[in-house]
Amino acid sequence: MSRLLYDLAGADEAVRFSPYCWRTKLALAHKNLAYETIPWHFTDKDKIAFSGQGKVPVLVDAEKIVTDSQVIAEYLETTYPNEASLFGEPPARQLTTFIKAWTETVLHSAIAPVVLPDIYLLLTPADQVYYRQTREGFYKRSLEDFATHRAEALGPLNAALKPLKITLEKQPFIAGLAPNYADHIVFGALKWATTVSSTPLLEPGGALERWMDAVLETYGLA
Amino acid sequence: MSRLLYDLAGADEAVRFSPYCWRTKLALAHKNLAYETIPWHFTDKDKIAFSGQGKVPVLVDAEKIVTDSQVIAEYLETTYPNEASLFGEPPARQLTTFIKAWTETVLHSAIAPVVLPDIYLLLTPADQVYYRQTREGFYKRSLEDFATHRAEALGPLNAALKPLKITLEKQPFIAGLAPNYADHIVFGALKWATTVSSTPLLEPGGALERWMDAVLETYGLA
Repeated sequence: MSRLLYDLAGADEAVRFSPYCWRTKLALAHKNLAYETIPWHFTDKDKIAFSGQGKVPVLVDAEKIVTDSQVIAEYLETTYPNEASLFGEPPARQLTTFIKAWTETVLHSAIAPVVLPDIYLLLTPADQVYYRQTREGFYKRSLEDFATHRAEALGPLNAALKPLKITLEKQPFIAGLAPNYADHIVFGALKWATTVSSTPLLEPGGALERWMDAVLETYGLA
Repeated sequence: MSRLLYDLAGADEAVRFSPYCWRTKLALAHKNLAYETIPWHFTDKDKIAFSGQGKVPVLVDAEKIVTDSQVIAEYLETTYPNEASLFGEPPARQLTTFIKAWTETVLHSAIAPVVLPDIYLLLTPADQVYYRQTREGFYKRSLEDFATHRAEALGPLNAALKPLKITLEKQPFIAGLAPNYADHIVFGALKWATTVSSTPLLEPGGALERWMDAVLETYGLA
């Protein structure tokens, strides 16, 4: 296999929860590109040292090493132009900038306080030490404090999801009749959330759950 | 003049503050269509009774009467296909559904608590009675209560604007190098806010103010 993706994993390596890695996995599927994943943990820095940085996704496409999900998406779009476009023509590509900014500032920020303690429980012992230190350092709150206030974080998460729900009650995908990279970005966030959450986060059979299933089905991942 | 737009106005008829009417004015400018506005007040229901409903914008395009800003935009796109597209091709048009949903659920909701009492002061006496009754009925709060808590509503408004700021620090318009209807929708919200607000809401010379100026300049409205 000439195409490898380093993909964040839990102690159980079947648990793959990085929102950014999910973007890349869907983008590869969108471009009809076969790949194998290599399960990677936060503290496996040495395993991706060849990429010149310490985060996943890392894509190794034959001899080419590409890091950062956005750079990878742009690389795939340029390198495989004969496959379906990830972004569409302008102005579609530029409109996706807003959806990315909304996902990363609003949606990720609303999901994090709900799932941070859940993620901790899924990690290897070495990753747990790393995760506690980096997350508690960033948020200036303990994981236990997040766990205590979990229920209070569900209201803001549901509020943040409102424009997404309205959109997906009107049309099958964010990009319309078929998913594109705008869907991949938002799907990554919700796949992260639902993979690690200790309680169900989405209304069963609701617009968001149906959309997530439809994205996976589109790419034969259901 | 064969093209008339009924446009919400304050007691001073130069004050035009409806976010939905602004969408239509920019859409008409985008399509290079000349028009005249007729200042309209909330209680002038009889003046637009011919449209079969009681809200603006109402567009009278020769013999055609069109209401609802979204229906008007779709009407203009279909009726004047040789002018610049308001939406772009799919998937751009579908991505705009999310931007519209975000604007109406998140942005409008964050602006309203800041400016409701400011708007009241700008209305005709008859409109003031109507406005107090409808808004206090809808929000179950008095206009005076909104005024008392105005400062507290500024933080959530700035938080809501964050993905928009990030987008407009990366590219000149939401739709990229030139504005389209996605910009018109969001511009309408901020034009509503900044027209009526008793205090400045945007950072002087910041990305949002520069974008608003650039939208107006694009259409010769600066």
